[in-house]
Amino acid sequence: MITTAKLNFITGNKNKLAEVRAILGNVVEIDSQAIEVPEIQGSIEDIAKEKARRAAEEIGGPVLTEDTALGFRALKGLPGAYIKHFLSALGHDGLNKMLDSFEDRSAEAVCTFAFCCGPGEEPILFQGRTEGIIVRPRGPLNFGWDPIFEHNGMTYAEMDKEEKNRVSHRYKALAKLKQWLEEGHLYLDSAGTRT
Amino acid sequence: MITTAKLNFITGNKNKLAEVRAILGNVVEIDSQAIEVPEIQGSIEDIAKEKARRAAEEIGGPVLTEDTALGFRALKGLPGAYIKHFLSALGHDGLNKMLDSFEDRSAEAVCTFAFCCGPGEEPILFQGRTEGIIVRPRGPLNFGWDPIFEHNGMTYAEMDKEEKNRVSHRYKALAKLKQWLEEGHLYLDSAGTRT
Repeated sequence: MITTAKLNFITGNKNKLAEVRAILGNVVEIDSQAIEVPEIQGSIEDIAKEKARRAAEEIGGPVLTEDTALGFRALKGLPGAYIKHFLSALGHDGLNKMLDSFEDRSAEAVCTFAFCCGPGEEPILFQGRTEGIIVRPRGPLNFGWDPIFEHNGMTYAEMDKEEKNRVSHRYKALAKLKQWLEEGHLYLDSAGTRT
Repeated sequence: MITTAKLNFITGNKNKLAEVRAILGNVVEIDSQAIEVPEIQGSIEDIAKEKARRAAEEIGGPVLTEDTALGFRALKGLPGAYIKHFLSALGHDGLNKMLDSFEDRSAEAVCTFAFCCGPGEEPILFQGRTEGIIVRPRGPLNFGWDPIFEHNGMTYAEMDKEEKNRVSHRYKALAKLKQWLEEGHLYLDSAGTRT
């Protein structure tokens, strides 16, 4: 018997879960688990793969994980995957100030979804990238670094949902993941084996 | 039979191995293994403990690991444990430039040795801390961020070995570890069980 797979999206963030469900909900059933998976240091890709691997080990089944990075060109792509530590320590003003002595304020937002179909399996990555510049905060301040990332004249925080979805790194990654799912790569037989 | 323990120092760095052997060699036999242990993200202490735990799992016996962090006060302790990524991406000049828009150039160097006596055991930490300021590079350029970390008017790179040992974060951590070893905590019986 062929059934639609159920994906465990590893997140403790309800907004992200809602976004993923809204976009993927018609192609796959999305469950969510908020397990703690320690993240390693390394490249964006290595971090994402290792997180998915470990989550799959922990829950003993297929998982989807998400990682967001924000790299500053002046800092050769850093903070990159470490952006959450920098944002929580320095805030919007501190992140801006770190760049004030550089001319180049350009940045790249990278979203990486990793799918791992079970313990011991090699994760598959779906990445979306969006170019922007780092500016003083504009727009609502309640969603991460959205107020300081400007793309085409507006910060993420200033964009309405539709506008943001057209350009955002996360949406681009989700679109790739959705296409892959629609191609049928995820259908499982009743024993849970990928067919 | 009580024998002196043999410690596996997890490093691929011959200079560090020589330094550890020079300081601890009369209290414990130091072997070295250059296994790859992925480092997690998190606090200095969590990173050190997890590395020691995994190294102990991997080699199935007692291990010693070492981690170095360099935190800038203006950046609330960052890059901290991520300093090696920042140094390799930005070099001495980039690290300086990151601080140029801040008044406070003070920094803290932290060395953390972690000892884990075997798989499943809780690691014990030995930390040394040294205060300094970040300056344009002075002295030989061949050892990490030594040329840009100034303590008492001299950069680490400008100090001779003796002078550096008197003040360095690594030496202070090693001194604590040495004292702990001399107190006899590490003697093992012939079966490898801690007594």
